[in-house]
Amino acid sequence: MKRVELIGVEGLPEIRAGDDLGRLIAGHASLQSGDVIVVAQKVVSKSEGRLVKLASVTAGDEAVRLASGLIANPDPRMVQVVLDESVRVLRSERVLITETRHGYVCANSGVDHSNVGSDTLALLPVDPDASAGRLRSRLAELTGAQVGVIVSDTFGRPWRLGIVNVALGVAGLSGLVDLRGTLDDVGEPLHATVLAVADDIASSAGLVMGKTERTPAVIVRGLELGGTGSGRDLIRPAAEDLFR
Amino acid sequence: MKRVELIGVEGLPEIRAGDDLGRLIAGHASLQSGDVIVVAQKVVSKSEGRLVKLASVTAGDEAVRLASGLIANPDPRMVQVVLDESVRVLRSERVLITETRHGYVCANSGVDHSNVGSDTLALLPVDPDASAGRLRSRLAELTGAQVGVIVSDTFGRPWRLGIVNVALGVAGLSGLVDLRGTLDDVGEPLHATVLAVADDIASSAGLVMGKTERTPAVIVRGLELGGTGSGRDLIRPAAEDLFR
Repeated sequence: MKRVELIGVEGLPEIRAGDDLGRLIAGHASLQSGDVIVVAQKVVSKSEGRLVKLASVTAGDEAVRLASGLIANPDPRMVQVVLDESVRVLRSERVLITETRHGYVCANSGVDHSNVGSDTLALLPVDPDASAGRLRSRLAELTGAQVGVIVSDTFGRPWRLGIVNVALGVAGLSGLVDLRGTLDDVGEPLHATVLAVADDIASSAGLVMGKTERTPAVIVRGLELGGTGSGRDLIRPAAEDLFR
Repeated sequence: MKRVELIGVEGLPEIRAGDDLGRLIAGHASLQSGDVIVVAQKVVSKSEGRLVKLASVTAGDEAVRLASGLIANPDPRMVQVVLDESVRVLRSERVLITETRHGYVCANSGVDHSNVGSDTLALLPVDPDASAGRLRSRLAELTGAQVGVIVSDTFGRPWRLGIVNVALGVAGLSGLVDLRGTLDDVGEPLHATVLAVADDIASSAGLVMGKTERTPAVIVRGLELGGTGSGRDLIRPAAEDLFR
């Protein structure tokens, strides 16, 4: 009987720029080779110093104009930071949906100020795959365990309400599992069946993480995955995207 | 330390119309009150007889026309069934994205023929919330356990590659958890934070289910959820949807 465990990593201190996140996680968890460690984007961003003080930002005309049309009535300086982090604005009625420099399509370029204070904005890591890779190496160095790492964030979706955890950065496992051509239970080949397994893993960790940082990381144990991949594998190319 | 277990339910026979799915699951699992049981849509549809033989379908002009533009080169009779199950076609280049009568937006109205044979199509349950509710009642009757039930299916998403499990029908738990107004770690109120917990649960079960039916159900244990809700709660109203 297949069994997977989700184990919250708790007791970490408030994370600051320059903190050794790998050492903090390794000190509060008992890792095993084959585990996948899902780490909340916010603590990764904090450890990498990806914070901006609102007071240091000047909003341009476009940011001021866009801010006035949004239902959350955001500070135009926040909108300026969102625009700075984006390469394209998809929607600006009600909410601001952008494509980030990495290629993620999400609200506000992933910029927010939950858990950092209202005078500060947290940005996504510059390269979440690199963040995941560094954390994976550091955990191997400290514990000897060969683990997979996913840097996750919560995104909204078209068509469905509520936010779910998704995988931004991936290291040490395949983000997608392609089952096309394998046989179903009646012996016919499966089609259109590429599983976004890194997103399913991120979502599962979301059940344990919640939205505060008391549980900034979750160990997912028992998956028996392997392979290598990146978070970029999960981004649908714009040319194939019917909704961009 | 918060810990959640995902336990595959295995060993069920091939499901046929009229089968008592509750009895089959109860006979292959040890349920506890507070568990959430995620059941794959396909076995629910089979037990409810939601299968159509392609030979019984006649494709209309619109189905023939649409079929010719789709990359999977589907049988026009399948496209006819997809249209019959839909209230709106959102996209028909490359793939067919429809809104179903229930309000789900997905590929092919959720109609497919994996695990049922190439001459047969499986449709979504008529009312997945009712399916979940009946299964929940039946499991309580047979085992005494008060469980939550989610009927799940795999959907694609705009912007991201691969399919993930989502919750179609929900019984015995809240589909959404609204954290707006609760305080974050720095004592400020969280905003825009409604968690699609039923989708996160469905995704977590997807890690154990895979895409065959050898594991048609998964027990999710340790969530400490409660409340009541429905799968409809997770459908974004068309009027608030920027991508419909």
